[in-house]
Amino acid sequence: MSGPGLAAYTDWLRIAVEEAEAGRGSGGIPVGAALFDAGGTVLGRGHNRRVQDGDPSAHGETAAFRAAGRQRTYTGTTMVTTLSPCWYCSGLVRQFGISRVVIGEARTFHGGHDWLARHGVDVVLLDDPGCVAMMTDFIATEPALWHEDIGEE
Amino acid sequence: MSGPGLAAYTDWLRIAVEEAEAGRGSGGIPVGAALFDAGGTVLGRGHNRRVQDGDPSAHGETAAFRAAGRQRTYTGTTMVTTLSPCWYCSGLVRQFGISRVVIGEARTFHGGHDWLARHGVDVVLLDDPGCVAMMTDFIATEPALWHEDIGEE
Repeated sequence: MSGPGLAAYTDWLRIAVEEAEAGRGSGGIPVGAALFDAGGTVLGRGHNRRVQDGDPSAHGETAAFRAAGRQRTYTGTTMVTTLSPCWYCSGLVRQFGISRVVIGEARTFHGGHDWLARHGVDVVLLDDPGCVAMMTDFIATEPALWHEDIGEE
Repeated sequence: MSGPGLAAYTDWLRIAVEEAEAGRGSGGIPVGAALFDAGGTVLGRGHNRRVQDGDPSAHGETAAFRAAGRQRTYTGTTMVTTLSPCWYCSGLVRQFGISRVVIGEARTFHGGHDWLARHGVDVVLLDDPGCVAMMTDFIATEPALWHEDIGEE
């Protein structure tokens, strides 16, 4: 781990958790994310909107990326997400050269973060108990919705 | 190659090319795509909308995927795209289990389609001269916009 450090990442995770909770509060899937610049300013934040917008392309990370608008470079940016990024969101990080991914937890779902680390992305896994509890509760309550969101039958 | 076959894929590519041309015609990046079900029905179609919507998350393939709305399964579906899918769009295909990708060309940009083939996706590369010419012209005319769209500085 390099960069701003664990205390900053733990603070930043709160923004992503706020997003996840807002998403769950409006009947959706509790995955939230935020994109930070190198100085710790939020460029964009968002949550999964599959249910709310009927939009399967709106994962937490892609919603935060969209909210940040057009950027000439992603060097030095950090994507903070409550959950290990799926292949779709991992591909986003790799293609656009986002420098770092800070992950709330990877116990309930293990996406592409090992692949990102192998390709030079700084990956920080916080293993946050609150994030684990949030997803564990959600998956137990709405298994079909969760499986739909990650393309599992 | 398995499935509907080359004549069908060539027909399907026309839909993606129409989308790309529409995108270029409205001042945008000429990449278009369409998602087909196993019977050859279009589930969704779209084009890159970075310029038109100021939305960096709207690549051709993700626009087509979004337009198709929520689907319970992607087994048997085909994503047809004018250009080799970038890592972001390749991740989409892998995560959601889209069965096949039909690609107009991979000469002007080589994305993640080899990786998809290694992970069981049926990849069909048509090497269409019209698609090559469309992107070659675009990249020569708007290199900065193109580099922005693929996260290159």
